[in-house]
Amino acid sequence: MGNIISLGTSRKPLPDTPSLESIIALVGDDLHRVNQLIVDSMHSPVSLIPQLAGHIVASGGKRLRPLLTLAAANLCGYQGDRHIGLATCVEFIHTATLLHDDVVDESRLRRGKDSANAVWGNQSSVLVGDFLFSRAFQIMVSDGSLRVLKILSNASAVIAEGEVMQLLTTNDTETSEEAYLNVIRAKTATLFAAAASVGAVVAERPTAEEQALESFGMNLGIAFQLIDDVLDYAAEEDSLGKTIGDDFREGKITLPVILAWRRGNDEERSFWRRTLEELNQTAQDIAYAKTLMDKHNTLRDTIDRAGHYGAIARDSLGIFRECPMKDALLKMVNFAVHRPN
Amino acid sequence: MGNIISLGTSRKPLPDTPSLESIIALVGDDLHRVNQLIVDSMHSPVSLIPQLAGHIVASGGKRLRPLLTLAAANLCGYQGDRHIGLATCVEFIHTATLLHDDVVDESRLRRGKDSANAVWGNQSSVLVGDFLFSRAFQIMVSDGSLRVLKILSNASAVIAEGEVMQLLTTNDTETSEEAYLNVIRAKTATLFAAAASVGAVVAERPTAEEQALESFGMNLGIAFQLIDDVLDYAAEEDSLGKTIGDDFREGKITLPVILAWRRGNDEERSFWRRTLEELNQTAQDIAYAKTLMDKHNTLRDTIDRAGHYGAIARDSLGIFRECPMKDALLKMVNFAVHRPN
Repeated sequence: MGNIISLGTSRKPLPDTPSLESIIALVGDDLHRVNQLIVDSMHSPVSLIPQLAGHIVASGGKRLRPLLTLAAANLCGYQGDRHIGLATCVEFIHTATLLHDDVVDESRLRRGKDSANAVWGNQSSVLVGDFLFSRAFQIMVSDGSLRVLKILSNASAVIAEGEVMQLLTTNDTETSEEAYLNVIRAKTATLFAAAASVGAVVAERPTAEEQALESFGMNLGIAFQLIDDVLDYAAEEDSLGKTIGDDFREGKITLPVILAWRRGNDEERSFWRRTLEELNQTAQDIAYAKTLMDKHNTLRDTIDRAGHYGAIARDSLGIFRECPMKDALLKMVNFAVHRPN
Repeated sequence: MGNIISLGTSRKPLPDTPSLESIIALVGDDLHRVNQLIVDSMHSPVSLIPQLAGHIVASGGKRLRPLLTLAAANLCGYQGDRHIGLATCVEFIHTATLLHDDVVDESRLRRGKDSANAVWGNQSSVLVGDFLFSRAFQIMVSDGSLRVLKILSNASAVIAEGEVMQLLTTNDTETSEEAYLNVIRAKTATLFAAAASVGAVVAERPTAEEQALESFGMNLGIAFQLIDDVLDYAAEEDSLGKTIGDDFREGKITLPVILAWRRGNDEERSFWRRTLEELNQTAQDIAYAKTLMDKHNTLRDTIDRAGHYGAIARDSLGIFRECPMKDALLKMVNFAVHRPN
């Protein structure tokens, strides 16, 4: 685990580093079965598929979304096996989205560079993403519940809409906080919500519990994405999966930027326009971007916004009785808001 | 309609140009409803989606796959409405695949060129493709038949595998006829087979009829793709949707090339290696490629192979009684094998 760069923010040192330990302790066996099913489901006579997909799925990742499905089913007292397959679906949909994101992001970055490797990467990303997406639907269909199919196919359509929305806000420094929230609700939080609510669906729990878990997932997902966007400016280089400053280099408009733009003067807005709209950047620009964010406290305030959604997520679990799984889900919120990477 | 370049082949002039007229005459009203549902299903608060998707779906296309679903349902005496939604799904899956193909193909062609427009094209193609694919699953889920969902989700997974297979055979002049057939079965014919068989499924016909229509679709699809690959070398420039020589420029290994390679001498194989493996091409190379194909009769023989699969498609309909719809489906085979573009 890396350290948090001092932001002068409200990210106070905590007694112990937030982690997913307690939830993994409770559903570790199920998660092991999900990992096994992930590998088994990627068998294909076309060997590139298990090779590439295996590499991608195995290469770290926190498995937050399948953990949500497993934990929600467990919280609802579910005793069967269906949550294993559905958690796998959720992870496949997520991985397919990541692969397609790579194409979209990479294309944007590739201008003027030698593209031979990037090209092969693009082709594989598109096609293996399609394969994982199709495989997810096959697993859902074999699960046999039209209710679950509806939740997950709706989530997939909303994610795709969210990705297109993000494309339209990219490089637009005038994007509003509301537009940004719509994007992250669609592209990130909707799958968290679906992942959690199918846990209640397989357990055949009352609608109120399904809705509570959906709300938990949605708000957890928003908080998670807000912190992800903070970490893109603030985490230690070697502790974060992605390189620091990716969002900046790609001209992605995230909340730390939106707030800095709105609180900035004309000169600062020229800086944001040059670097994020025109993508005319020098090596020093990322440091100056962080200086402006510090000046206007935008990273701290984005973390505060994440805390707001985290609080809603916590309260949505109020209808469930106290138990170790509920406690672990509450710690998951803490992880989403206070994680160092 | 354009004319066929004289190939010295078995594509004899026919009394009348093969067309889809008779099938459109019989299911034209249903096709109109499909077109309407296509437009209605692309509504999204994200206006880029109806804009781009509408442009793509509206820009021609023969609607062969939805026609198959409509005709198969009609042949089986189906009286309800479900075939409209399912024909729309089939067309969306096809269009999503085309969009993702564009990324894969375009990337390969874009080396060294200014990529600004291509980049935006790539991003939109990936994301709108994902949206259409998700929308197709939503429509299938609302249809509510797990049997249909199984057929179409399996088809989607096989298509994705086929696309990856094609990626692996591209630029490999030693690809075998068998490997090539596996690719086109997976990437093209499987969706034709699924499109036709769901027509029997909604009509709740016996398994024998479902299988007959599946076989009809599969063999029709193989024949269609073989002729598509011939036309990429032989159609008139202005009569074909795609530009002549696309496959050659991209180094796609199709049957006309596979046969020319296998029948060629060392010097000819050097030519194919240089042009299709190394993609080191001059403006004159496409003409020389055609000269070699003429020398070895590979376009004619590919058409003969298509005729073979067309014959199997025809015979698979043998279990159905004579009727105008059966006759129209037989004419569809004629169209697939003898169409000028």
